[in-house]
Amino acid sequence: MRPDELSAVDAVALIRAGRLSATRLVEACLERIAQREPQVRAWVAIDAEGALSRARALDAKGGRDGLLHGIPVGVKDVIETADLATAYGSPIYEGHRPRADAACVALLRAEGGIVLGKTVTAEFATTTPGATRNPWNPAFTPGGSSSGSAAAVADCMVPLACGTQTAGSVLRPAAFCGIAGFKPTFGWLSRQGVKQVSESLDTLGSFGRTVGDAALMAAAMARRPGLALADPDAPASITVVRTDAAAEASPEAWTALDRVAALLSAAGVAVGASELPEPCSALPRIHPAIEHYETARALAHEHAHHAQRLSPKLRDRLDHGIAMPHEEHARAQAVARACREAVARWFDGHRLLLTPSAPGEAPEGHATTGSAAFNRRWSLLGLPCLTLPVMHGPNGLPVGVQLVARWHDEAALLAAAAFVERQVGWRA
Amino acid sequence: MRPDELSAVDAVALIRAGRLSATRLVEACLERIAQREPQVRAWVAIDAEGALSRARALDAKGGRDGLLHGIPVGVKDVIETADLATAYGSPIYEGHRPRADAACVALLRAEGGIVLGKTVTAEFATTTPGATRNPWNPAFTPGGSSSGSAAAVADCMVPLACGTQTAGSVLRPAAFCGIAGFKPTFGWLSRQGVKQVSESLDTLGSFGRTVGDAALMAAAMARRPGLALADPDAPASITVVRTDAAAEASPEAWTALDRVAALLSAAGVAVGASELPEPCSALPRIHPAIEHYETARALAHEHAHHAQRLSPKLRDRLDHGIAMPHEEHARAQAVARACREAVARWFDGHRLLLTPSAPGEAPEGHATTGSAAFNRRWSLLGLPCLTLPVMHGPNGLPVGVQLVARWHDEAALLAAAAFVERQVGWRA
Repeated sequence: MRPDELSAVDAVALIRAGRLSATRLVEACLERIAQREPQVRAWVAIDAEGALSRARALDAKGGRDGLLHGIPVGVKDVIETADLATAYGSPIYEGHRPRADAACVALLRAEGGIVLGKTVTAEFATTTPGATRNPWNPAFTPGGSSSGSAAAVADCMVPLACGTQTAGSVLRPAAFCGIAGFKPTFGWLSRQGVKQVSESLDTLGSFGRTVGDAALMAAAMARRPGLALADPDAPASITVVRTDAAAEASPEAWTALDRVAALLSAAGVAVGASELPEPCSALPRIHPAIEHYETARALAHEHAHHAQRLSPKLRDRLDHGIAMPHEEHARAQAVARACREAVARWFDGHRLLLTPSAPGEAPEGHATTGSAAFNRRWSLLGLPCLTLPVMHGPNGLPVGVQLVARWHDEAALLAAAAFVERQVGWRA
Repeated sequence: MRPDELSAVDAVALIRAGRLSATRLVEACLERIAQREPQVRAWVAIDAEGALSRARALDAKGGRDGLLHGIPVGVKDVIETADLATAYGSPIYEGHRPRADAACVALLRAEGGIVLGKTVTAEFATTTPGATRNPWNPAFTPGGSSSGSAAAVADCMVPLACGTQTAGSVLRPAAFCGIAGFKPTFGWLSRQGVKQVSESLDTLGSFGRTVGDAALMAAAMARRPGLALADPDAPASITVVRTDAAAEASPEAWTALDRVAALLSAAGVAVGASELPEPCSALPRIHPAIEHYETARALAHEHAHHAQRLSPKLRDRLDHGIAMPHEEHARAQAVARACREAVARWFDGHRLLLTPSAPGEAPEGHATTGSAAFNRRWSLLGLPCLTLPVMHGPNGLPVGVQLVARWHDEAALLAAAAFVERQVGWRA
C-alpha cells in the first residue's frame, strides 16, 4: 500500500514502530497532491516546506506519543492558522494572516499533527461553492461547505482533515466523497479562531477514510485521547428514522439504509423504526430562520464594509437576516428548545438512530453543494452524528448512511459506527 | 449637567432633537478622560482623532435613527477592533491589529455608536488584574475582568461600554463601581471576534450608569431595537435567593438586599424567599472544573507558543486544565444540565430573583478583582442577570443588588430592574 493510502490509525502505528517516517508520509501526500490537485482542486494553500520540516523534526524526536504523531492534516480555510493565510473562502480576506492558530489547530499540532495546507471552503462556510470537484467524477459536486477537506481525504491527498457544520457542511461532503465525517455534540469543541456563521449552530467536525480516523482527528482537536480508542461494538438496538425529508431521497439512499439495517439485523442488533416526536416537524423550517438571523450578526463587519465583495446570494441572506424581527428568531429558538426536550424524552426508548446522510449520490454540476435536508435537523438539535460510505449509486458515486446518537454519547456513536463499517466492508 | 454626565438614553434624545452634537459629547468625554485617567487607568487605548472625526461625520449626517447615534462607547480589550490594537490583556498580543471588528462592535457602529477606545481587561479576561483603580477610591479594586469598562462608565469617561463574563466579569465590576451591568442569556449575542476563555460560559454584557443605558447598549450589540424600550414595570412577585454563598457576604450586601425587598413590598410586589433546587449546590464546585478544562483548550495556542509570557497563575490554570481527564469535564457538564432542568421546573413558581451582586463592597487592594461567589452559578446556568447600585457601604463604596430572570426573559428583567432603579432612587 502506498503511504498516502494508509489510514491515519495505521500510519501512526507504523511511525511509532519505526516502520514509516513522518517525512516519507508527507512526501507521499505531496506527490499525490501534485498528481491530482489540477483535477480535484481541494486546496487553497499547501505548505510543503513547512510540513516537511516539521516531519523531519518529529522523526528526529525521541517521544512519539502524540495522538497524531507525524500525520499530515488538512484544515478548512475558515479555521485560522498562524503560519498560513486564512481567507474564509472570501476575496475580502485574500492573504489574511491571523496572529494565532485556532484552538483546534493548536491542539492537533500539540499531538504531533502536521498542517499540510488549507482546504477549500464555500464562501464563509455558507453556500456559494469553491472550485473543488468530486474526486470520484469531476462533473459532480463534492458537497460543501467543507468541500476541500472531504475531497482531499477521499482522494488520499491527506489522511485527515477538519471542517465545520452549520446545516450539513461536514456530513454532506463526507457522504458525497465516500468517507467518514463526524460532527460531535454542539458545544464541546472550542471554536476559538473559527470564523463564525451562527453562534448557536456552528460545530467543528472531522474527516477520515475510516471511522477510526475521524474519531482520532476529533480526539486530537478536543484533547480527549479516550475518544480515539473506540473499538467496534455492536449496539443492542438501532432505530431507523426516515424523517419528514423522506420524499426528497433517491432510491439509492434507501438501498444503502436497508442494506445496513439488514446487516445489523443479521448480526443480532434489534432494528426498529420510529420518527422524531412533535414539534420536530418544524425543525427544517426554523433552522434557516435561526441561521440567517445569526449569520447577519456574525458577518456584520463584512456586511458593513465589504458588501460588494460578498456573493449576491450571501448579501441577500445578510440583508434578509438583519431585517428579521427579533421575535421571529426568539420563536424559532423556543421551538428548537421544545424539540430538544421532546427528543430527550424520546431518547429514553432509542439509543442510536440510522438515517440517510444525504438525499442520494452527489448531484451533477457545481452551482450548488447539494441539499442539507437530512442534516439540518441534527445540526439544530445539536446531536452527534457520523456518516460512513456503504455502496455506489447509479452514477458510480458513493452513498452513505448516517448514525445519530444522544447528546455527548460520542463514544457509543463511534463504537457502533466502527461496527457498521466492519459489517459493510466498504473499500473505496 | 455636563454632557459627559448624561445618560446615553438622554444624550441620544438630545442629539436627535438637535440640542447636543456628537462632537460636543465626544469632546466632553475626552476632557473627562484627560482629567481622570491618570488616577483611574481604565483605558489601554484612546482613539481621540478617530472618534472626533466619526462624531463630526454623524453630526453632518441627515438621518439620526441609529440606536446609539453619536454615543461614544468603550470596548473591553478582549473584543476585536479593526482600527485599534487589541491585546486581550496580554503582552503576547501587544500591538496586535485584528483584520475586522468583532460582530458586536460592527453592530454597535452600525447603530451610530462611536468607539472611543479599548478598556483594560484582566489577562485574557481571567483573573490577573490590569492597572485599573476603583474610581470611588483608588485603594480599592474596580473588580474584573471587565475592569476598565466598569470604571470608565462609572467615572463618566464614557456613557456606555461592553464586556464579557465567564464567572463574574460583568456583574462584579459593575457592582463594585456602582453602575448597571447586564449579562443576557448565554448564547444570544454573537461572540465572533471575542477572544474565547470558555466555549460554554463566555457571554457578552453591557455597562451603563442606568438600567436603560445598559439595555440600550445590549440592544445595539444584538441588533435588537425592541430591547431598548424597557419601561419600568413592577414585577408581580420577586423571590429572594440568598444562595449557598450566603455566609461569604458582608452585612452591607444584606442591607442593600433588604432595602430593595422592602421597597418592592411597599410598592405592592409579592416578595418571597426560596433557594435553588438540588443539585444546584454543586454549581460553585463544577464551574471552575468546566472553566479550567475549557480555558486550557481555548488558549492552546498561547500555552504552546508563549507560556513564558503568561502570568504564573494563568499558566498553572492551563497546566491543570489540560491535564484534567475528559470524564471530569463530562461529569461537570452533566451536573450543569441537571441543574438547568431542575431550575427550569423551579422557575414555574418563580418569575424574578433578587440576590446579592457580590459579597459586599469592593475589597481593598489590587492583587485580586474580588470574589465571583455570587456570579458563578448564574453564569453556569446561563440565566440573564443584572446588577444595579443601591447604597454606599461602610467604606463609602457602592453596593448593588442582582436581579436574575428566566432564560430569554431579558425584556421582563430589564423592565423590573428599571422599576427597582426608580424605587431606589440612587444618585451616584
